[in-house]
Amino acid sequence: MSPAPRLPPAARAIVAGDRRALARAITAVENDDPAARPIVRALYPRTGKIPVIGLTGPLGVGKSSLLSLLIGRLRTAGRSVGAIAVDPSSPFSGGSVLGDRIRLERRADDDGVYFRSMASRGEAGGIAAATREVARLLEAAGFDLVFVETVGSGQVDVAIREVATTSVVVLVPHLGDDVQTLKAGLFEIADIFDVNKSDLPGADRAARDLSELASLGRSADGWTSRIVRTSTTAPMGLDELWEAIEAHERFLDESGGRVAGERRRLAREIADRVREHVGRDVTVRLDRDRELRSLLDRVVARRTDPISAADRLYRQRYRAR
Amino acid sequence: MSPAPRLPPAARAIVAGDRRALARAITAVENDDPAARPIVRALYPRTGKIPVIGLTGPLGVGKSSLLSLLIGRLRTAGRSVGAIAVDPSSPFSGGSVLGDRIRLERRADDDGVYFRSMASRGEAGGIAAATREVARLLEAAGFDLVFVETVGSGQVDVAIREVATTSVVVLVPHLGDDVQTLKAGLFEIADIFDVNKSDLPGADRAARDLSELASLGRSADGWTSRIVRTSTTAPMGLDELWEAIEAHERFLDESGGRVAGERRRLAREIADRVREHVGRDVTVRLDRDRELRSLLDRVVARRTDPISAADRLYRQRYRAR
Repeated sequence: MSPAPRLPPAARAIVAGDRRALARAITAVENDDPAARPIVRALYPRTGKIPVIGLTGPLGVGKSSLLSLLIGRLRTAGRSVGAIAVDPSSPFSGGSVLGDRIRLERRADDDGVYFRSMASRGEAGGIAAATREVARLLEAAGFDLVFVETVGSGQVDVAIREVATTSVVVLVPHLGDDVQTLKAGLFEIADIFDVNKSDLPGADRAARDLSELASLGRSADGWTSRIVRTSTTAPMGLDELWEAIEAHERFLDESGGRVAGERRRLAREIADRVREHVGRDVTVRLDRDRELRSLLDRVVARRTDPISAADRLYRQRYRAR
Repeated sequence: MSPAPRLPPAARAIVAGDRRALARAITAVENDDPAARPIVRALYPRTGKIPVIGLTGPLGVGKSSLLSLLIGRLRTAGRSVGAIAVDPSSPFSGGSVLGDRIRLERRADDDGVYFRSMASRGEAGGIAAATREVARLLEAAGFDLVFVETVGSGQVDVAIREVATTSVVVLVPHLGDDVQTLKAGLFEIADIFDVNKSDLPGADRAARDLSELASLGRSADGWTSRIVRTSTTAPMGLDELWEAIEAHERFLDESGGRVAGERRRLAREIADRVREHVGRDVTVRLDRDRELRSLLDRVVARRTDPISAADRLYRQRYRAR
């Protein structure tokens, strides 16, 4: 697809492969800068085709090393890769996490890889929104696939379903071994479970337990979570992991799940955006609109409660026409 | 305040000190069970008076040990304490975090302490909402003060300002030593910085650096962040930490900051609740309303983009009357 002449210059530069234009647009998205809007809007028609692969799991299971090895293999196979690491541990910076990031960022001399870490800034909805838009910028910039890695916080793990076409949950043997400790939500997130550090004892048992549990869940879309075993030190299992990812991507195409998933994610995105509009509007009016100020006064004075106040405000002012 | 006869039975039981009724109501709040609504609404007039003290900071700085020691001292002084630990690392359970929790929960034989850990379930707004309501239940149950501890994830750290009257950010010397690595947002969260593990080298320097930075920020409300040093192994500094917390609480009363803060938090809560109403409504209509389905179809087909679609939907259907 050649750059259309009506694209804004920054969007045209991104499509033409200008990595500095890409970096500037990502920064604008990350900072919630209004300058990002015309760019992401103009590039939107060029998106929604490539695999977006989510990697999530607890801290310390080796997600970053795994990502680094996967990227290496994909590069060898001639595929270009964009990667986003979402770090929810802001506003505190983290040592080891940062170290992994830097290791990946050193690939900067290879034009077929683009790696970017993003700090979350408060709202979980904000992370999902920014990650979605950055994944689209990377797709518009021509990358064949995008990885989204999270460092393992509840909010982000759930948000991965709002962004990824295939979600990989990475665990380690001793965690998988005690699968009862894993919350049920995990089975809804995971298209694939990867038992990493499978050179450690207990990996067989962990994989078997996960298989049993996986066979009980997820059937609405017809996909049963696959279990693979990897090690980044040996290394082993990387091909199997990649094959499982490709199998899920093929399944999405064959089952109609790709369009259904895209529709579900876009519905969520639109609902999030309308919500944000309303949230900002309510906040401004609670400060400036006489009637809303008086409602807030009554809540502060305990003459009414915030649940009733919000219900009333919604019914009287914000219910859909 | 004696239990009013018009309270629902569950609310009356909570006010009368029934800990099982309290536990059931907290579970209902945590599960977003509609059964919680009449209880939290009925108890709301009994809330908003006590200190809610937020403890936040990176993993591994010793927040749980600190909390345990603070609770011990407050109990010795005859004060009853409710505590909520918010664990954002769900759906993965964490070893050491869980260990700390269990240590605290063993105080269960003391009726003057109530400890509850809550896993976050996705939405950051959800954590703030649930924590706010549980803090109110604890206040209505008669506790003199409430602690809210987070395990140090970005979303929750920010959410602490939506719940706490006094926020303590806990750090350790080697982190404080390199204060440049701390994001600016931290200075907006912290009423008090606590350099814990101050028996380790570098504590003096860390405290000094933090003092310098703190003196540059936060003046809108007239409070300058206090810096204290503690150690839970020595132990040392606990009195100073508690004095700093009490000083901030006194400042809130004397400066009018208590009412201003309560008003700000309630405005945010009402805006969050109206947002949630709208978000649910948009989601349902995108699935069922013919016109909205067709808008979503066009977004899926890339004939329009989600930003424009949401803007239009907001303007046409949800803008305030």
